[in-house]
Amino acid sequence: MSLLQRTIESIKPLDKQAMAEAQKRLDYLLKPQGSLGRLEEIALQMAGITGKVLNNPNKKAILVMCNDNGITDEGIASFPRTLSMLVADCMLKGISGVAVLGKNAGADLRVVDLSLESDPVTPGIINRKMRRCTSNFLQTTAMTREEAVRAIEIGIEETNKAIDEGYNMIGTGEVGIGNTTTSSAMLHVFTGKSLEILVGRGAGLTDEGLEHKKEVIRKAIEMHKPNASDPLDVLTKVGGFDIAGMAGTYLACAARRVPVVMDGFISGAAAVLACRLCPEAKNYIFPSHGSAEPGSKAVMDDLGMEPIMYMNMRLGEGTGAALAFHIIGASMAMMNNMGTFGDIGMG
Amino acid sequence: MSLLQRTIESIKPLDKQAMAEAQKRLDYLLKPQGSLGRLEEIALQMAGITGKVLNNPNKKAILVMCNDNGITDEGIASFPRTLSMLVADCMLKGISGVAVLGKNAGADLRVVDLSLESDPVTPGIINRKMRRCTSNFLQTTAMTREEAVRAIEIGIEETNKAIDEGYNMIGTGEVGIGNTTTSSAMLHVFTGKSLEILVGRGAGLTDEGLEHKKEVIRKAIEMHKPNASDPLDVLTKVGGFDIAGMAGTYLACAARRVPVVMDGFISGAAAVLACRLCPEAKNYIFPSHGSAEPGSKAVMDDLGMEPIMYMNMRLGEGTGAALAFHIIGASMAMMNNMGTFGDIGMG
Repeated sequence: MSLLQRTIESIKPLDKQAMAEAQKRLDYLLKPQGSLGRLEEIALQMAGITGKVLNNPNKKAILVMCNDNGITDEGIASFPRTLSMLVADCMLKGISGVAVLGKNAGADLRVVDLSLESDPVTPGIINRKMRRCTSNFLQTTAMTREEAVRAIEIGIEETNKAIDEGYNMIGTGEVGIGNTTTSSAMLHVFTGKSLEILVGRGAGLTDEGLEHKKEVIRKAIEMHKPNASDPLDVLTKVGGFDIAGMAGTYLACAARRVPVVMDGFISGAAAVLACRLCPEAKNYIFPSHGSAEPGSKAVMDDLGMEPIMYMNMRLGEGTGAALAFHIIGASMAMMNNMGTFGDIGMG
Repeated sequence: MSLLQRTIESIKPLDKQAMAEAQKRLDYLLKPQGSLGRLEEIALQMAGITGKVLNNPNKKAILVMCNDNGITDEGIASFPRTLSMLVADCMLKGISGVAVLGKNAGADLRVVDLSLESDPVTPGIINRKMRRCTSNFLQTTAMTREEAVRAIEIGIEETNKAIDEGYNMIGTGEVGIGNTTTSSAMLHVFTGKSLEILVGRGAGLTDEGLEHKKEVIRKAIEMHKPNASDPLDVLTKVGGFDIAGMAGTYLACAARRVPVVMDGFISGAAAVLACRLCPEAKNYIFPSHGSAEPGSKAVMDDLGMEPIMYMNMRLGEGTGAALAFHIIGASMAMMNNMGTFGDIGMG
């Protein structure tokens, strides 16, 4: 059995008994029942994930999956592919958005090169290069089906490695010029929602650029006819290795019962993919922010989630996941440190 | 000239030049312009407040204003007034919601007794008791106009003390059984919005309790006819000392150019009061969460603000302000620590 298949088969439901005990504790804390809203829901879900009422997921990592997209040959992105490695390099130097916000949230970064076009500049990037860049999916499929599986498995392997080293909360992130295009294309197939709703300006397209981006996706869908009920077919035909790698992270976290925090739109498309492969994986995912990309809402609707924050952000990298770490930490503090009615003789 | 008048007169506009310089830096950071959304807006506002491009508001306090409301004699609250001092006591013991979430955010607590009915249990509460409990405003006004001014001034004094001790970011919070009733009543007068929109279940009223709460407010408004264009008249007739104290905090922070983070619904009603006394004060306030109290949206609309988070919380105390401290801290990290295009030779 393949690593992907084994991982999916190890994913089990949340621990209902731990959740019932957590709910009892929540109702016994010094506050009107339910009055800490989302903080309580987070604590409850966390108990279901780990099987423990009290949790302290304080060893945090953001796994950043890097990929270049051949489809940028069609002029659907605001920046050239060479920028991706530069961004990855800035992460390792600690000066990119996610590097700074991750550090601020006490999280380590792991930057995984799955398929960047350029060679690494700085040491420190995790080299899992499958090839340089996906194919232009207006000419052929973005990748082969074997590559699609392998990329998800690399995501699983890198996530398992981090968990083996003691990381107990993982955030997803990505680098890849053109990956709002692949995300929108995949979501169009999976959700059936229109491109008008799903396609945005990415890093800053003009009106004309936006129309062209939609047209490119439309053509690709017509050409490849991806099968919505075969998630690997969709990934193979119009996806990217970054999305595949992040899907691997969600699946590995779910299999290992480790909480995983979803970043924005592209991380969301990867979550949709992971949950098409294994619907149970959803319960191990915490959303973070509603991104400024218009398709963000479609992702949340598909996953049945509500973002915690509305920050109007659209940088990606894992920046939203970093912010959510703070709120999840606050939820844990509530659960672990608040007094109970018993403490004041009212229990 | 009174302390209140002097404070209001010291409130000046945001520093436009610092904001222009901050915008320049934001656009030079390693990201598509504007792509960090709200984090960028926070950094911009912070520059306007302090007059500096780089800021590090890391000495944080939450000032909790405590008051008991005579109107609870009318049965509009789920808990007896005696609970307020118990909650204040739990704050000092470090086991209440805001004590735990404040500590988690690196903030100190200052609990100010303006008018609790009971005597303090634990040492540590700041004793500024004006009297025990406001009056039942179905019988007389909640307080006298002199008391209204004095309570705001106590808020100013306690906030100035904290700023003098080096606190450079303040959060608002409150304790006071019955204070969603006073808040809704004041907002009804100030905004003209209906009680259907403004009145919620507080700590957990039944349907019947909710209707009764609206009826009590309706009667009080008919009886006192508060003058919407005279903010002190509204406070005097249907307000509370907690709301007055928090209004003092907003005004003092604005006068001293110190950022102040608004908590939920009741803190929001206090912000509306402060901004009716001095509209410029609004620019020194950061919103935190959209509370589960239905009137929360009316507060945000009146102030022209959007919450950062939707946590479905309704505990008060300052719990939402504590959460927002994390996000404001992340914004400062972005501004202070991200690299620029110049750093990678693209400037």
